[in-house]
Amino acid sequence: MRRFYAPPERFTGGRVRLGDEEAHHICRVLRLGPGDKIHVFDGLGHEYLVEIEIAAGRVVSGRVLAEVPQEKEAPLSLALAQGLAKGDKLELVIQKATEIGVKEVIPVHTARSVLKISEGTRRTERWQRIAREASKQCGRTFVPRVESVTTLEALSARFKEFDAVLIFWEEERARRLRAALAELAGKGKVRRLLILVGPEGGFTQEEVDLVVEAGALPVTLGPRILRTETAGLVAASIILYELGDLG
Amino acid sequence: MRRFYAPPERFTGGRVRLGDEEAHHICRVLRLGPGDKIHVFDGLGHEYLVEIEIAAGRVVSGRVLAEVPQEKEAPLSLALAQGLAKGDKLELVIQKATEIGVKEVIPVHTARSVLKISEGTRRTERWQRIAREASKQCGRTFVPRVESVTTLEALSARFKEFDAVLIFWEEERARRLRAALAELAGKGKVRRLLILVGPEGGFTQEEVDLVVEAGALPVTLGPRILRTETAGLVAASIILYELGDLG
Repeated sequence: MRRFYAPPERFTGGRVRLGDEEAHHICRVLRLGPGDKIHVFDGLGHEYLVEIEIAAGRVVSGRVLAEVPQEKEAPLSLALAQGLAKGDKLELVIQKATEIGVKEVIPVHTARSVLKISEGTRRTERWQRIAREASKQCGRTFVPRVESVTTLEALSARFKEFDAVLIFWEEERARRLRAALAELAGKGKVRRLLILVGPEGGFTQEEVDLVVEAGALPVTLGPRILRTETAGLVAASIILYELGDLG
Repeated sequence: MRRFYAPPERFTGGRVRLGDEEAHHICRVLRLGPGDKIHVFDGLGHEYLVEIEIAAGRVVSGRVLAEVPQEKEAPLSLALAQGLAKGDKLELVIQKATEIGVKEVIPVHTARSVLKISEGTRRTERWQRIAREASKQCGRTFVPRVESVTTLEALSARFKEFDAVLIFWEEERARRLRAALAELAGKGKVRRLLILVGPEGGFTQEEVDLVVEAGALPVTLGPRILRTETAGLVAASIILYELGDLG
């Protein structure tokens, strides 16, 4: 069954009206029409079986027949704060993080970020679209939130929203991710976890001091040095394997 | 310390002669000369401290002072057989697989591969260079072998070289990777493991039948559908976390 995305406000009175882009795809590309059935997900974890009633150019709407039960979301809510990296690396990170099951991506401007805050802000809408497209493709009904670019200082003030915060740091020698996860599991159920990954060149000592002061645990991923765009994906894979529904 | 790669045959009589590309980098870019010390790794797991004796244009050679002890390699030898995928996806897979710690990448032409065998063969040298560059960057002294493009039939005949073979298949519902790894661990130490990942569109039923007949276990990575280039990286991350040195 073909899957389409419509935000919650487009569902009213048992009907849903699709956005321009989706409508175009339904009418012009797939040539579906009244009576055809599609799945529509709302990005918040719900998916519905919908029968198309109107399909005319950029206007497509239909009647919601039933909710389709979903088991696509991990029990752990994992947020990935990624240091702004060069080029289109963040696009790769957002696409892959969505498939892996991350709930939230927070682009962070750090001391060694080459990309400026303004450039990151300009790209936010594009990043959100990438998360939407990746959700559609991988069968998720939840679209990860891609936040506006923030700073480590602002992010530190939000640590209390999470059960735990891990910062991946190549100079950490003692605490492996494995040990950190065991440590957290020993303290009770982890429902919301935030992980921090630096840009190319990593975090500075001052940045690590700042977030550790605010309650983050520094951890290492092992003996090999992972690129910035690899570290978050490897960490998310392992964490959602240990505490989520991956693998 | 700067790291350079030289294959084993370039080490003779306690000296090493660097290749053209590395020599150029040493002389022209880094402007190192006689007396300067560098690290040189041989791609088979060894790294040496070397003092440069001659540095002239494209000729750089030096004296091996000592072997540098390494702990960069996982105790598990993991081979990733990846269905030939579109565009430059295999480049991404090879780069990331090298960082994660895979030992061998085997490009496989399958029924749903869009890329032709001949195109894959033409790219093999490029893929090998990507593995070399990624090894250099992530601190590995071992360069993963990128084999020539093969077929599932030819690969199946080699299954006996491995302690176990897993095939990731989106239609497998029962056996999760977690369960498969527990099953393998119960049977004794796993030293060589081969994992198979399909191209876009996955494996056909006939292909799955073929490799299962030859001894592979079909497994699923969980409720979300991973793209072909994501599946191998997530699987390798989890496997090297469970049975190797990652995380």
